[in-house]
Amino acid sequence: MEKNFKIHTIGKATINSPLDLSKKRGDKIFNFVTENEKIIYNIFYENYNKCLKKNIMPLYMEKAGPREQIFFNPKNVKAAIVTCGGLCPGINNVIRGTVMTLHYFYGVEDILGIPYGFEGLNSSIGHKPIKLTPDKVKDIHEFGGTILGSSRGAQDVNDMVNYLVENNINMLFAIGGDGTLKGADAIGKEIDKQKLEISIVGIPKTIDNDIDLIDKSFGFETSFDVANPIIRNAAIEANGANNGISIVKLMGRDSGFIAASAALSMPVVNFVLVPEMNFQLKGENGFLKSLEKRLKSRKHAVIVVAEGAGQHLIKNGKTVKDASGNLKHHDIGLFLKEEIQSHFKSIKQEVTIKYIDPSYIIRSEKANSSDSIFCSRLAYHAVHGAMAGKTRFVIGVVNNIFVYLPISEVVKKRKKIDLEAGFWFAVLQSTGQPFNMS
Amino acid sequence: MEKNFKIHTIGKATINSPLDLSKKRGDKIFNFVTENEKIIYNIFYENYNKCLKKNIMPLYMEKAGPREQIFFNPKNVKAAIVTCGGLCPGINNVIRGTVMTLHYFYGVEDILGIPYGFEGLNSSIGHKPIKLTPDKVKDIHEFGGTILGSSRGAQDVNDMVNYLVENNINMLFAIGGDGTLKGADAIGKEIDKQKLEISIVGIPKTIDNDIDLIDKSFGFETSFDVANPIIRNAAIEANGANNGISIVKLMGRDSGFIAASAALSMPVVNFVLVPEMNFQLKGENGFLKSLEKRLKSRKHAVIVVAEGAGQHLIKNGKTVKDASGNLKHHDIGLFLKEEIQSHFKSIKQEVTIKYIDPSYIIRSEKANSSDSIFCSRLAYHAVHGAMAGKTRFVIGVVNNIFVYLPISEVVKKRKKIDLEAGFWFAVLQSTGQPFNMS
Amino acid sequence: MEKNFKIHTIGKATINSPLDLSKKRGDKIFNFVTENEKIIYNIFYENYNKCLKKNIMPLYMEKAGPREQIFFNPKNVKAAIVTCGGLCPGINNVIRGTVMTLHYFYGVEDILGIPYGFEGLNSSIGHKPIKLTPDKVKDIHEFGGTILGSSRGAQDVNDMVNYLVENNINMLFAIGGDGTLKGADAIGKEIDKQKLEISIVGIPKTIDNDIDLIDKSFGFETSFDVANPIIRNAAIEANGANNGISIVKLMGRDSGFIAASAALSMPVVNFVLVPEMNFQLKGENGFLKSLEKRLKSRKHAVIVVAEGAGQHLIKNGKTVKDASGNLKHHDIGLFLKEEIQSHFKSIKQEVTIKYIDPSYIIRSEKANSSDSIFCSRLAYHAVHGAMAGKTRFVIGVVNNIFVYLPISEVVKKRKKIDLEAGFWFAVLQSTGQPFNMS
Amino acid sequence: MEKNFKIHTIGKATINSPLDLSKKRGDKIFNFVTENEKIIYNIFYENYNKCLKKNIMPLYMEKAGPREQIFFNPKNVKAAIVTCGGLCPGINNVIRGTVMTLHYFYGVEDILGIPYGFEGLNSSIGHKPIKLTPDKVKDIHEFGGTILGSSRGAQDVNDMVNYLVENNINMLFAIGGDGTLKGADAIGKEIDKQKLEISIVGIPKTIDNDIDLIDKSFGFETSFDVANPIIRNAAIEANGANNGISIVKLMGRDSGFIAASAALSMPVVNFVLVPEMNFQLKGENGFLKSLEKRLKSRKHAVIVVAEGAGQHLIKNGKTVKDASGNLKHHDIGLFLKEEIQSHFKSIKQEVTIKYIDPSYIIRSEKANSSDSIFCSRLAYHAVHGAMAGKTRFVIGVVNNIFVYLPISEVVKKRKKIDLEAGFWFAVLQSTGQPFNMS
Repeated sequence: MEKNFKIHTIGKATINSPLDLSKKRGDKIFNFVTENEKIIYNIFYENYNKCLKKNIMPLYMEKAGPREQIFFNPKNVKAAIVTCGGLCPGINNVIRGTVMTLHYFYGVEDILGIPYGFEGLNSSIGHKPIKLTPDKVKDIHEFGGTILGSSRGAQDVNDMVNYLVENNINMLFAIGGDGTLKGADAIGKEIDKQKLEISIVGIPKTIDNDIDLIDKSFGFETSFDVANPIIRNAAIEANGANNGISIVKLMGRDSGFIAASAALSMPVVNFVLVPEMNFQLKGENGFLKSLEKRLKSRKHAVIVVAEGAGQHLIKNGKTVKDASGNLKHHDIGLFLKEEIQSHFKSIKQEVTIKYIDPSYIIRSEKANSSDSIFCSRLAYHAVHGAMAGKTRFVIGVVNNIFVYLPISEVVKKRKKIDLEAGFWFAVLQSTGQPFNMS
Repeated sequence: MEKNFKIHTIGKATINSPLDLSKKRGDKIFNFVTENEKIIYNIFYENYNKCLKKNIMPLYMEKAGPREQIFFNPKNVKAAIVTCGGLCPGINNVIRGTVMTLHYFYGVEDILGIPYGFEGLNSSIGHKPIKLTPDKVKDIHEFGGTILGSSRGAQDVNDMVNYLVENNINMLFAIGGDGTLKGADAIGKEIDKQKLEISIVGIPKTIDNDIDLIDKSFGFETSFDVANPIIRNAAIEANGANNGISIVKLMGRDSGFIAASAALSMPVVNFVLVPEMNFQLKGENGFLKSLEKRLKSRKHAVIVVAEGAGQHLIKNGKTVKDASGNLKHHDIGLFLKEEIQSHFKSIKQEVTIKYIDPSYIIRSEKANSSDSIFCSRLAYHAVHGAMAGKTRFVIGVVNNIFVYLPISEVVKKRKKIDLEAGFWFAVLQSTGQPFNMS
Repeated sequence: MEKNFKIHTIGKATINSPLDLSKKRGDKIFNFVTENEKIIYNIFYENYNKCLKKNIMPLYMEKAGPREQIFFNPKNVKAAIVTCGGLCPGINNVIRGTVMTLHYFYGVEDILGIPYGFEGLNSSIGHKPIKLTPDKVKDIHEFGGTILGSSRGAQDVNDMVNYLVENNINMLFAIGGDGTLKGADAIGKEIDKQKLEISIVGIPKTIDNDIDLIDKSFGFETSFDVANPIIRNAAIEANGANNGISIVKLMGRDSGFIAASAALSMPVVNFVLVPEMNFQLKGENGFLKSLEKRLKSRKHAVIVVAEGAGQHLIKNGKTVKDASGNLKHHDIGLFLKEEIQSHFKSIKQEVTIKYIDPSYIIRSEKANSSDSIFCSRLAYHAVHGAMAGKTRFVIGVVNNIFVYLPISEVVKKRKKIDLEAGFWFAVLQSTGQPFNMS
Repeated sequence: MEKNFKIHTIGKATINSPLDLSKKRGDKIFNFVTENEKIIYNIFYENYNKCLKKNIMPLYMEKAGPREQIFFNPKNVKAAIVTCGGLCPGINNVIRGTVMTLHYFYGVEDILGIPYGFEGLNSSIGHKPIKLTPDKVKDIHEFGGTILGSSRGAQDVNDMVNYLVENNINMLFAIGGDGTLKGADAIGKEIDKQKLEISIVGIPKTIDNDIDLIDKSFGFETSFDVANPIIRNAAIEANGANNGISIVKLMGRDSGFIAASAALSMPVVNFVLVPEMNFQLKGENGFLKSLEKRLKSRKHAVIVVAEGAGQHLIKNGKTVKDASGNLKHHDIGLFLKEEIQSHFKSIKQEVTIKYIDPSYIIRSEKANSSDSIFCSRLAYHAVHGAMAGKTRFVIGVVNNIFVYLPISEVVKKRKKIDLEAGFWFAVLQSTGQPFNMS
């Protein structure tokens, strides 16, 4: 066996689901998902063949969906939702979908919104929870942000477990990124230790799309959708001046998915710089020389840079962490602007540089249509998993199928752009930038 | 062996690709794709296991991408692009991406745009082809529609082959739906018969997303993205009146993907009616009774209906075909409106009905960000396949991977919503409509 | 004296305004508006000169704004807001602005929302009023429509006056069109007769922009803003086919402002047909001949038609009125489509016609930025007027200045496009259509 | 006589206009505008009365429009268009409208686009002019920026006059702000001195809306339309954190129209800071105290600040000018952020501050619908004026009427927000900020 992703459970699911689903194909009614339904992670034939030869099973994942037997009696369920870390398009959609499914499909009536992230689970801070009902959440998908508020950083695990116990909460949906998911898993571990019957569910939220194993995280498509016209306008600026250069800085601390996708979606970009690249500024193959050539032939240039790109170029920078423990980066955008300015000054070429940093404009946008669908479906499946008594899992999509994955597996490392794979090659085809600028 | 999708070729690829790619992993440069790279179609473990037990190979598909050896000498390539059938977001992006890759990556200088669909390949009609250059296409992604114009319906295969031969065209990219792809395959077959060296490539264009086997077709995401605020406004209308009912008719002749996706993306819809459903209007389980209940409890209702839904309900309708040979439907939207009106009149309940038919507003929109990326990548891969001498294939995405598929395989039947699968279940969870209205 | 627009009052304003404004220029604080501040209606020098010679005063209007002395003691105010007729962008903004100013600037705590238009003022129908607070309305500007619901048609004046009296309402803000304003004035007249102290304020809502005397009505700018990309897409459709013709039908029963403005804002339109025009289809100068010429020279054409245009061309039409008493028109759009079709059939020219009727998509949109500002300012001024004890007036903008006008003056006739003025000439310059098609 | 705005002319207009317009009312055809049509600037009755008593004529302006007699023979016209200074929405619309009217209405065939602003009129720099035709400009309204490119700063007047003479240009349309208009007037003056027959027309372009006398400048409405959702998102951010504060910096060097209008259009803003205000940070009435109170009552705050606001607060700043000679400001946004941060640190209150600087995102947007109409009409009227032989004028709108104004009059001073007028009072009503923070 290659390896499998076994999901933790609180206990045996023995209660009949209130959902009126089917158990057979052909009746045009959705079937309960069984524990035997699994999807293969690596879909390349080569891998299949390799497994075949070694007579091992390929790595597979558990298909998400409503189970025929559930663990929790809906009448006794008190669910809580918490949203942590930076804003990301779609959080409200996930909240809405969770409340709606709990309420309408399982008949759960007691749903709390925990305010201001993990802070809200620390009773000593004293934020008051909000009662969530269908009426309260019905329009929130029209707004970016989170109606619950958020905060960065961790709280003491025991404080949080105590909060859950004291408030009789037996189901916690934690919407957040890497740090939040680790925190949620720690809560789940402690609950396990204390043999409590509380299900802990993670819904991965990372605008950077850098959660490992899953196809994509919610809010990511919206983010490059919002960046798209900003890049178009940057190109308008670059074209508006003789030797005009526009630099757009986009999110992406460790992974350049937003920068690369946004650039690919607006095919007027000439250079994309991402954290995964090891580019140089100077030298015959360096970025500045390439930029020089581009200006010579076309009189303008558009550069999209991820905030985490080129950190190796910024000298004497001290390491700083933000409240969530993420490394804070030196501003590559401003750095680039200065380096470009001084380079062209040194070769006595006049250029006009426009620097654009849309920052919070993007992450506070509401979910676009694709993300809206995605968020609803994530929420529905998260609820089905929790009701079935699964815990310490995330809901995600792998090879287009919704699956449950152990939190511990997705936080092992961050997903990054594979510079040798098709996506990055598409970026290079779109921009025409050199394959190698080091 | 389950079955495989062998791609036709014109001849042996013996020319070194001008692309400066790599052949090994680890150098951070994209590798040429080899003929051994295949992806498995059915990614469920169950199927894997079944194949394993029967000792057969699962169905697999050929990975798309640039080959190390190509068939055509770029200097001798004269490529043509033709766009057929109804408009669809992203056609111009596909044209742009095709021209850019041919020009910048392979150095092809001779690229023609064929005007007004297959009509343009009939020399007796006399439309003049347009020379396509990077400069000509650089901004066209900002516009919906097709710069080449389109037409519906078929032309004589021999006329079209003659046109290609007379104009020395050795590579034809046909962007179109079911009918177009069948036409392209017929051209390819005739070329094969005449032992000509002309590659025929299909790029599936169907706003309805009903091409079989592939994950999705370009323009589909944009289409429900455009429908999304229209549905929101329909809900505003429904809310604006006492017992307000809004009906939005969306595209979807045989498959209800647009209606279902748009409704799922704007979770204020109460009923989605698609061609795949066998619903009844009357009776205790019928749609009208359900609508009555909805109005009673919430005082307004929003209905999204695909144009091809409920055709079984429209009596005495004569069968009519449009110019492309597609069955023309009786207008289900207007029919529903009348049926609802007379139903509530009969039970003496006042209702206000608003009927919204956005029609051409949607399909003439430009590609949104996700589709823009998708179109570029489709175009790049289409070119790589053609340069390698492959023919009678379409480029598509299966399980998130770009693959080449024989045209003949994807036109066998239309893709439809599986009413027993997760997507439709999500729609039911979002709308709260009964699982069964028949 | 030419004529003046004296505003009715309930009684003498003797209470000091709670607003902390100034009475002198130069202190950088807004001054209370006095009854002496008036603006001239006709700003042409010629008219000024004429008045000068005749020694008469030109027609002037009363400047809107907060008065130093008000009539109502804010503590005793119970205000009500009612929204009538069809939806129009900005209604919620007007509601919001009214509530906010009453609450925060005058300290009024008792504000009711009357549901479903004038129906809500008929106690026998039994709709329950809604308490309006800043918290209730703070986000409603993000939504089109009206949170209060609306209805068409009149109710008995005495019933409505009784409702106001029974509910101790002493201030009614009626947001609606021609019919609503007439109704509001009738209520005001009856109140006057009964010597009641209830102020009746009209806020003109007509998406067609056809209220007389005022520069524009709220929602109008948004309406052509929403129509703008629809017309662009119609042009995309027309271009996408050989001899493609797109027809877009827009609102405008008696006045073609939306059609003309939308067409002017998207300068790809070739023909605009409005109710004010007396055009013919047939004949050497007729529309069809002009269209023929256009197709001949450019191979496509875009037509924008107001719903009320060309009614003189539709034969045998019976006169029908809708619930508000407006004449219902025969569908000029479909009529045109058929006429064009048969004309080109008769001259054996193939054309492709696309008919687009965005209908409710437009009027249910939320206010755009300009309308949002406009709605807030209308609401603020409406409140200032009501607090000062003015009644039976509308708030409007004339020559860019907010003024109070007697309801009776603005409902005398509908505003129409002056075919001899600059605006229509701009349309003709933009479209290039013949000055005369009759 | 109060004062009048006499427009310069090159010579007597003696040629019959090729426009087929009317000379009488009642025929439903637009009439030629005569030199006797004037509009009054001050429309307040008080002013009328004052003039009446003094027996003087009020200040009036010349109505714009096509004249029956024109100066230039269209066959001999060689027109040039130049765009200067920073980008602004609508420039391309103005270019398009100018080309279309010259071509289709007057039959002018020779139209040049001057590249990169006044640089393009200096032959020693060597930019090549671009031939402008209807086909070249037909789609440019779909793009922000300027297809001609722009540059900042002046060129030698004689160089520019020589360029016009050498290239036989007899009509120059200069689209630009304060500096450009002054430059254009200087060119016109020199032409006058040399008794040349070249008409110089200014089309005021200032995104800040700070050109004196005119109602508004093109691009201004679009600019706050683009800022509108950015402010909404800033509010989302502020709400997303406990004691969240968002600061949005918008354009407005000397006048705060964009900041004030954008804030008014998105009524979730709590503070607007503009250059016209003399606010203090510290002290009981200061901004920081007000902000403290706001946070206390509502837990979040949204601040919109114009780039030119609060310059008096930034100490030790050296005076710097940009290439156009405009004073460069110290960054008030970053300054505010730091001051707020240190203030709340000093009172030991935790706050989360988000700083948003959309910068170039706004000015590179394409014109919205209202601006699109406005730009077309400005262009049409500019052409009519030039054809009639008028020179050294700008086209603008005053009291809703298109008028010609001498360049010299509009550049005397910048238009600013009148803190005692209704517009600013509306802002105060919308934000609830103190009338006085000094």
